[in-house]
Amino acid sequence: MAFHLLEKDRAGATELGRALGAAVATIGQCKRCRMLSDADWCPICVAPGRDVASLCVVEMPADVVAVEQSGSFRGRYFVLMGHLSPLDGVGPEELGAQQFEAILLEGVVREVVLATNPTVEGDATAHFLAELSARHGVRASRIAHGVPVGGELEYVDGGTLAHAFAGRLPMR
Amino acid sequence: MAFHLLEKDRAGATELGRALGAAVATIGQCKRCRMLSDADWCPICVAPGRDVASLCVVEMPADVVAVEQSGSFRGRYFVLMGHLSPLDGVGPEELGAQQFEAILLEGVVREVVLATNPTVEGDATAHFLAELSARHGVRASRIAHGVPVGGELEYVDGGTLAHAFAGRLPMR
Repeated sequence: MAFHLLEKDRAGATELGRALGAAVATIGQCKRCRMLSDADWCPICVAPGRDVASLCVVEMPADVVAVEQSGSFRGRYFVLMGHLSPLDGVGPEELGAQQFEAILLEGVVREVVLATNPTVEGDATAHFLAELSARHGVRASRIAHGVPVGGELEYVDGGTLAHAFAGRLPMR
Repeated sequence: MAFHLLEKDRAGATELGRALGAAVATIGQCKRCRMLSDADWCPICVAPGRDVASLCVVEMPADVVAVEQSGSFRGRYFVLMGHLSPLDGVGPEELGAQQFEAILLEGVVREVVLATNPTVEGDATAHFLAELSARHGVRASRIAHGVPVGGELEYVDGGTLAHAFAGRLPMR
């Protein structure tokens, strides 16, 4: 990208540099949910129509965008900005566990939906947050693991198939 | 493949031709579960250690292999050899609905696990078979749809995310 800009589009490079500088200067984190935002509170946290009783916990800001685009969740979010990773020095504090508890202490949230990535670290983080929620008397649930829609069983990995069988649901 | 064999490996081509001919001549379908088999009953249907109360319904023989490799299911199978597709002339009869009902009538199966593909046709087929099972008083369940293990939320399609949220499970 750097070569392309310097060879073919120097004006674009200047523009991109200015935009990046402006983004760094103006975009911070929402004080409540830690989502990237150019205001103190992000648009989702201040939106009046959201279901305040549901709190969806995700790892990264891009996950919020993905869930919003799927239209499957109408509550608010909490962005961890990572997952538990003791070897990298990422513990509960770095993930904003205190802010998370502060939200639970408000007493409005009835369900925490744990939408961390379906990886080992994401699962560990989900378990940690589920315990934290239980301590505050809030129900925690985990998004379903299983076969992706439109796929074919034959090409799904064994771990996912095992989850799909373990998590099978009664029909009607 | 044809060019490669004819140019570089004519002996291999002869061997492959013989093997294919032998396979066509000897491999038929299991009389019970419709799985490809060189005997009247396939090894899974005659194995003594399987859980006879669980019947897993899949679309294709390759799906049986995939589920077996995942080690997530210990019951028996029923292979539809396709999915409902009225436009292609594939109805219940072509999928072996009669044989399926005959198995349910034995009165041994307690749960039918519907592991058809997570596609529109696979879902329609699953609903049809769930109704058929209900008519025989047998519980039917559908394998979970959701985010595949090891993936990242950001790259999962909206339909799968919607299923993952709808199918979320309580933690502990």
